[in-house]
Amino acid sequence: MLEPLSPATRLHLHEKTFAFHRGGSLPGLVLAYETWGRLNADKSNAVVVFTGLSPGAHAASSPEDPQEGWWEYMVGPGKPIDTDVFFVICVNSLGSCKGSTGPASADPASGQPWRLRFPELSLEDIAASTRLVVRALGIEQLCVIMGPSMGGMTTLAYLLQDPAGARHMLSISSAPRAEPFSIAIRSLQRELIVTDPNWNGGDYSDNAWPENGMRLARKLGMISYRSAVEWQDRFGRDHQFHFPRQLFGMTYEVESYLEAAARKFIGAFDPCCYLYLSRAMDWFDASSGCDEGLPEALADVKLDSALVIGVDTDVLFPARQQGEIARSLIRLKIDTRLEMLPSPQGHDAFLVDFDNFAGMVGGYLRSVARRERLGS
Amino acid sequence: MLEPLSPATRLHLHEKTFAFHRGGSLPGLVLAYETWGRLNADKSNAVVVFTGLSPGAHAASSPEDPQEGWWEYMVGPGKPIDTDVFFVICVNSLGSCKGSTGPASADPASGQPWRLRFPELSLEDIAASTRLVVRALGIEQLCVIMGPSMGGMTTLAYLLQDPAGARHMLSISSAPRAEPFSIAIRSLQRELIVTDPNWNGGDYSDNAWPENGMRLARKLGMISYRSAVEWQDRFGRDHQFHFPRQLFGMTYEVESYLEAAARKFIGAFDPCCYLYLSRAMDWFDASSGCDEGLPEALADVKLDSALVIGVDTDVLFPARQQGEIARSLIRLKIDTRLEMLPSPQGHDAFLVDFDNFAGMVGGYLRSVARRERLGS
Repeated sequence: MLEPLSPATRLHLHEKTFAFHRGGSLPGLVLAYETWGRLNADKSNAVVVFTGLSPGAHAASSPEDPQEGWWEYMVGPGKPIDTDVFFVICVNSLGSCKGSTGPASADPASGQPWRLRFPELSLEDIAASTRLVVRALGIEQLCVIMGPSMGGMTTLAYLLQDPAGARHMLSISSAPRAEPFSIAIRSLQRELIVTDPNWNGGDYSDNAWPENGMRLARKLGMISYRSAVEWQDRFGRDHQFHFPRQLFGMTYEVESYLEAAARKFIGAFDPCCYLYLSRAMDWFDASSGCDEGLPEALADVKLDSALVIGVDTDVLFPARQQGEIARSLIRLKIDTRLEMLPSPQGHDAFLVDFDNFAGMVGGYLRSVARRERLGS
Repeated sequence: MLEPLSPATRLHLHEKTFAFHRGGSLPGLVLAYETWGRLNADKSNAVVVFTGLSPGAHAASSPEDPQEGWWEYMVGPGKPIDTDVFFVICVNSLGSCKGSTGPASADPASGQPWRLRFPELSLEDIAASTRLVVRALGIEQLCVIMGPSMGGMTTLAYLLQDPAGARHMLSISSAPRAEPFSIAIRSLQRELIVTDPNWNGGDYSDNAWPENGMRLARKLGMISYRSAVEWQDRFGRDHQFHFPRQLFGMTYEVESYLEAAARKFIGAFDPCCYLYLSRAMDWFDASSGCDEGLPEALADVKLDSALVIGVDTDVLFPARQQGEIARSLIRLKIDTRLEMLPSPQGHDAFLVDFDNFAGMVGGYLRSVARRERLGS
């Protein structure tokens, strides 16, 4: 049921045991990734872009695959993440279902999908497995490490494991830890899936997919990713005519928008992978066990600069949490800027609000390139 | 499965045809209500309190029923809505399941619950049926009409039908119309219920109740009623030990809080009634058909004063909508005050934030009593 991989996908085969952060291991991993631009001679221009929960490695089009990527406006020649200057790497997260090993992959011993037999996944595992790809490309230290949403959390996990892993960091609409409001949303999304009769204790089949649970979970996701102000301006109380009216639903335009978005998602993501990644976000706490909080956790991190971007209407990764990341870095005397963007588009703004994000991200990466004497 | 009615409940039997706003009719209605305090000789001290979606008529305890009501801190002798001064009426909304006629009531022709054969319900019907109780008590004009949440919408519906129906209005955390964000939440809640296999096209039984759909809908409700800040302060990342840990859920305190709240609700509300009331809120638009918006809709309303209270962390009935109600009344030269309360408790603050609400509501009602020369 899942979409085919991009022809631009490369696979890194890790043929040793991979031990998971919370215990358990796999005999090997496949890690799907794409790259854009060229790694320079001294390997000093590499950028890793960690993804949010659902995107794959196809962040942008390329000569090998002209199809639009999930961050098309951001990555490419002359774009804010300028692939004429930087060598950009995007890995499909370990545990996902877009080419990398995850609960939907086959256990080589049985030929059957791992499903619930997959080890407990945490963002620390996504960070560590991404480092395998970075090392395989011959890169010791990244120029820039970055990610939006879950990808920003994974960025922090990477730096906690490898404090000199990057010289510059860009955190977008992310957080140092999951807070109860976002946990509540994700917990309910997971419950929607596992109470779908087709979930069947994890033994769903292509013919009996927990489609309704996935549809409902995606709608709840969309509600939490956007903002009330955007929808009021966009939909108001307009009626919908795309779908048959249903008893108790599908009267208003906003309802058909959610339905259309959910239908697109249903077949594009494996339910078990979704559950594993969603739970990994809940578990993440960059300052776990640190009495002095995030500055203590990040004390060894060796960044030359950082930019932390948030959006004022984001309810899932609120301003407060962006502030905590930025303040912690500043306390560690890292050259850090915090930018709260006024965007009506909530948590998803980084995907769609070109006007606010392109200049901010592009400006930061140009300043990094100057500082690093990269590019022409 | 529903709770027994309060011994303080009175029933008004309307033994004529009741025609619904959107068409259809019932041969008669039962309207359950409670009152507190005494109606004075010139019948000038009556207050109607409209409820939110789920509460019944038992707003507060009384000598007849010492059990706490849903607005216990607000209604009673010496309390903000002072029953030594005012005669307070609270009616269980038409369409609900706490004593008044609704989809869960028996169709007298068949003895079976109406369920989906109940006419389409709108807030205008709740307003009109409440007026039947007010008139039956011999009251032509209310001193104060008020309500929180859905109750504030019904307050507006009442005044649109009967522009001289009250001399003072108190709108709390409400709105002049449903906007797409709150429609999206409610639409998803309804979908959770009607996609529960036990919903069974509306033919559920006590033994096969759409309990899971109701549980999930209530959790989504709770998420939208509170605020991220409150939960961060209250729960943080504390683990829960009340319920057995479940795969993909029930790790954190916030998850067990939602589970406990949802379990309480499941048996206390009829699914069909919930769907009818939820949809009625979506349909409500006080300025429907008015090119000039709310001031045009309210142009004939004859209020002496109004207080509009909102809460800054309310995402369901946001500040913007409180402002629209207040500005419209001011344009109509009605003596109106707008108060945005700084409360971390979101939409539900009126139920729990005694500190912020008691003084504000009590102060307004004392000023009304002085103006009206009520009380000792």
